[in-house]
Amino acid sequence: MLTDTIKAFKEYQKKMAAYHYAAGVMYVDGTTAAPASSYKARGAALKELSGISYQLSVSQELRDMLKELMEHKDELDFVTMREAEEMTESLERMSKIPQEEFVAYSVLTSESEHIWAKAKNTNDYAAFRPYLEKIIETKRRFSGYTDPGVPVMDALLDHYEKGLNTKILDEYFANVKEKLVPIILAIGKKGQKPEYPFMNAYYPIEKQREFSQYLMDVLTIDKERCQMAETEHPYTSGLNLDDVRLTTHFYEDSFTNNMFTMIHEGGHAIYELGSDRSLADSSLAGGAAMSIHESQSRFFENMIGRSKEFCEFVFPKLCELFPEQLLGYTANDLYLAVNRAEPSLIRIEADELTYSLHIMVRYELEKQLIEGSLSTYDLPEAWNAKMKEYLGVDVPDDAHGVLQDVHWGGGMIGYFPSYSLGSAYAAQMYACMEKDIDVSSSVRKGDLKPIIDWLGERIHKHGQLYKPGEIIEKACGGEFDPKFYCDYLAKKYSEIYEL
Amino acid sequence: MLTDTIKAFKEYQKKMAAYHYAAGVMYVDGTTAAPASSYKARGAALKELSGISYQLSVSQELRDMLKELMEHKDELDFVTMREAEEMTESLERMSKIPQEEFVAYSVLTSESEHIWAKAKNTNDYAAFRPYLEKIIETKRRFSGYTDPGVPVMDALLDHYEKGLNTKILDEYFANVKEKLVPIILAIGKKGQKPEYPFMNAYYPIEKQREFSQYLMDVLTIDKERCQMAETEHPYTSGLNLDDVRLTTHFYEDSFTNNMFTMIHEGGHAIYELGSDRSLADSSLAGGAAMSIHESQSRFFENMIGRSKEFCEFVFPKLCELFPEQLLGYTANDLYLAVNRAEPSLIRIEADELTYSLHIMVRYELEKQLIEGSLSTYDLPEAWNAKMKEYLGVDVPDDAHGVLQDVHWGGGMIGYFPSYSLGSAYAAQMYACMEKDIDVSSSVRKGDLKPIIDWLGERIHKHGQLYKPGEIIEKACGGEFDPKFYCDYLAKKYSEIYEL
Repeated sequence: MLTDTIKAFKEYQKKMAAYHYAAGVMYVDGTTAAPASSYKARGAALKELSGISYQLSVSQELRDMLKELMEHKDELDFVTMREAEEMTESLERMSKIPQEEFVAYSVLTSESEHIWAKAKNTNDYAAFRPYLEKIIETKRRFSGYTDPGVPVMDALLDHYEKGLNTKILDEYFANVKEKLVPIILAIGKKGQKPEYPFMNAYYPIEKQREFSQYLMDVLTIDKERCQMAETEHPYTSGLNLDDVRLTTHFYEDSFTNNMFTMIHEGGHAIYELGSDRSLADSSLAGGAAMSIHESQSRFFENMIGRSKEFCEFVFPKLCELFPEQLLGYTANDLYLAVNRAEPSLIRIEADELTYSLHIMVRYELEKQLIEGSLSTYDLPEAWNAKMKEYLGVDVPDDAHGVLQDVHWGGGMIGYFPSYSLGSAYAAQMYACMEKDIDVSSSVRKGDLKPIIDWLGERIHKHGQLYKPGEIIEKACGGEFDPKFYCDYLAKKYSEIYEL
Repeated sequence: MLTDTIKAFKEYQKKMAAYHYAAGVMYVDGTTAAPASSYKARGAALKELSGISYQLSVSQELRDMLKELMEHKDELDFVTMREAEEMTESLERMSKIPQEEFVAYSVLTSESEHIWAKAKNTNDYAAFRPYLEKIIETKRRFSGYTDPGVPVMDALLDHYEKGLNTKILDEYFANVKEKLVPIILAIGKKGQKPEYPFMNAYYPIEKQREFSQYLMDVLTIDKERCQMAETEHPYTSGLNLDDVRLTTHFYEDSFTNNMFTMIHEGGHAIYELGSDRSLADSSLAGGAAMSIHESQSRFFENMIGRSKEFCEFVFPKLCELFPEQLLGYTANDLYLAVNRAEPSLIRIEADELTYSLHIMVRYELEKQLIEGSLSTYDLPEAWNAKMKEYLGVDVPDDAHGVLQDVHWGGGMIGYFPSYSLGSAYAAQMYACMEKDIDVSSSVRKGDLKPIIDWLGERIHKHGQLYKPGEIIEKACGGEFDPKFYCDYLAKKYSEIYEL
């Protein structure tokens, strides 16, 4: 009976979700609370769990259920049909990867992230390199299994966003480069604004923690379902519709680092928390694609968080927490200080304007690494050269260069472009949103609810019910066009720098 | 081949340890970092994992291995022999409990702890009662499976310490009551010492956190292998020889609460971290029995932490962290303040002298609950009556009464006596230790290493290689005798109260 199969299929998804949850908690714990020496025990446990997850993903039981469901596709409700569709595709991919290799890869990336954190702290690229090498080898091998005949980099990009490939991205980045570099050059000619000393005053961590909690409230994040923690490299993890974790990192000599991390990760969290309740136990809860996820985080971080209106709204609260540090400054100083466009070393500290050049560096290098035209031994040198070429900066050491991001160490190759695409999607959504609601005056009041509701209706509530392209159409009022992103940045920075 | 079986047996234990680790991490996460709404997802994941753990514990594969090993018992090395012995006993117990009931019980206690925390916060015993009822029913049912014909309470006590029963405990408590009550009465007659206002000054949490880290260092706890977190009810969890978690709770109007929690939990952590490296992947790593665990935590908390010498050692550090709060006070004031003997409401805040009466209340009530002579509906009233009878205090509400401890909510019935027995073991160990090393002068210098080494050699390094009774013999220089505990308390409190 089809109804019995549907019921069994739903139970099966709950079972898969249970292992996903357990592994997710171990990941979060490993990056937040666990002592350093725990990594072996965690690796062993993850190995067991990913073994089971693999078996569940490719089992004959699932295969049989999916076959029956797909044969009766027209009789299924939309959610079940999409679940079956996505899981069939995933099963077909997964069953091409031998289980022991899949499990070994989970263990590798878990260890590799641990080694990366140590390597970054001690500026020791050599310690991390063999792990990166193994990850690249594995990516190539897996791609050979799942997408034979497809260039590896295209397969990896498609994995993070269906339909994306190097041709599209090369064009996109050429476009962005063409439009943004003249603005960056014009700012260079015009002369930089003065630095604001308050940006590097002493900001006690305890007060920053309080500010983080305040920002979660402003972002209307439900703390019954979402909690904050601290990690080396911030991230958000949607373990379950009722359990989302976001992390931040505190620096005593900067409050803006944590501030924009919180708003960025808050954007991810809002998306994860926003799936419709009917998807709670479905494999379709959560974000539809990495780039759409990044559109949400970058939208909140930049379009909202770095707007003049948000600076005006949040400044009194900052003065309450840091009265001495901000004495004599205004909300407009904050706005100018957090929108300084200046080539720099660290991606997550980069301004909106130069940000996509950081992504270009990573995208071009990972493409070369995957294609084999660059060796992991030569990577730091290549990194430093590209940073000099595109951003004009000298990289002092690998900790501030190639080791700065966790992504490659965690096996996320082909992920970086999502950040830039996400920013571009966000700009287009922003333009579309402004037709419906008065964004500026909402932000000035600190009332983000109308904005979050607008995004919720068009993006969040659907989870993975629609494909990335369909979501973009819904939220951007048409096909993706990088013009909105370039226009947005040109307008904002022309104004700030009086170009 | 026996050697093949031994190898497979070791691998099998590693596999079991992996599931134990994953479940342990979820437990720790659930009590520390997870958002409140996560409990359902965690319950579902724990259900899956405990299902596998159950299967691993009773599988035919394990049964076959153990049978072969036990047939060649004389040819095995000591560690393997003891592993086989303990696991055979556990398999025999476990296989008597139907899997679905075992799994349901894991889910029940996970949910019940969550409900308990809410009930305590809102003083709502009625919300917690049905869970307690189910736990008691399950305990009785399981005991019928595993120990038919044995009184349930005896079976539960034996579970926490092999050989313990109500007869032994009834005698022990009668003894303790007979010796300690006269001292408590004498103090009552003599008149109480004045209270110290500094005990309830304002102590910022951030400074207390710093003090906690300092105490971990004094206790020589390796932070690479052990990390601290915060929970409603503090505990220590040895997830692995390289991953031990201890938790504390901060109150702004007391620094001693956290101080003695840290030293108490630190004692547990030292024990968990102290297993010999050769037991790292063995099922025999960790504490030998709950009462021996408590002997370590109570030893550090009371014999060390509440000693005059430790107060002298730690006072300068406290003055550095809390200069205004402690202005005008001395180390001797601290000593007297933390050793006030006065009947009170909360077990974990009780002084050393009246502590065992708190345990008696719980032991007598849980015995009645298990035997069926007391209903969960009547429990709060019975609790309040006993607190009045033994300690002379009026319980204002259930949050400060029957809801104060997590244990029953977590299914730990028959556990409380371990605390009192542990204190009594600790006193006997202390007397024995003093023959070998100059405890007082070590403590005065804040050099706990000789003390920890002494315990390590006699107790910690053995893990569960020996049975509780054998460990007591090793560490106490003879059979257990409650006389040492009563003498220790009589001497300490006669001196403080000049009796």
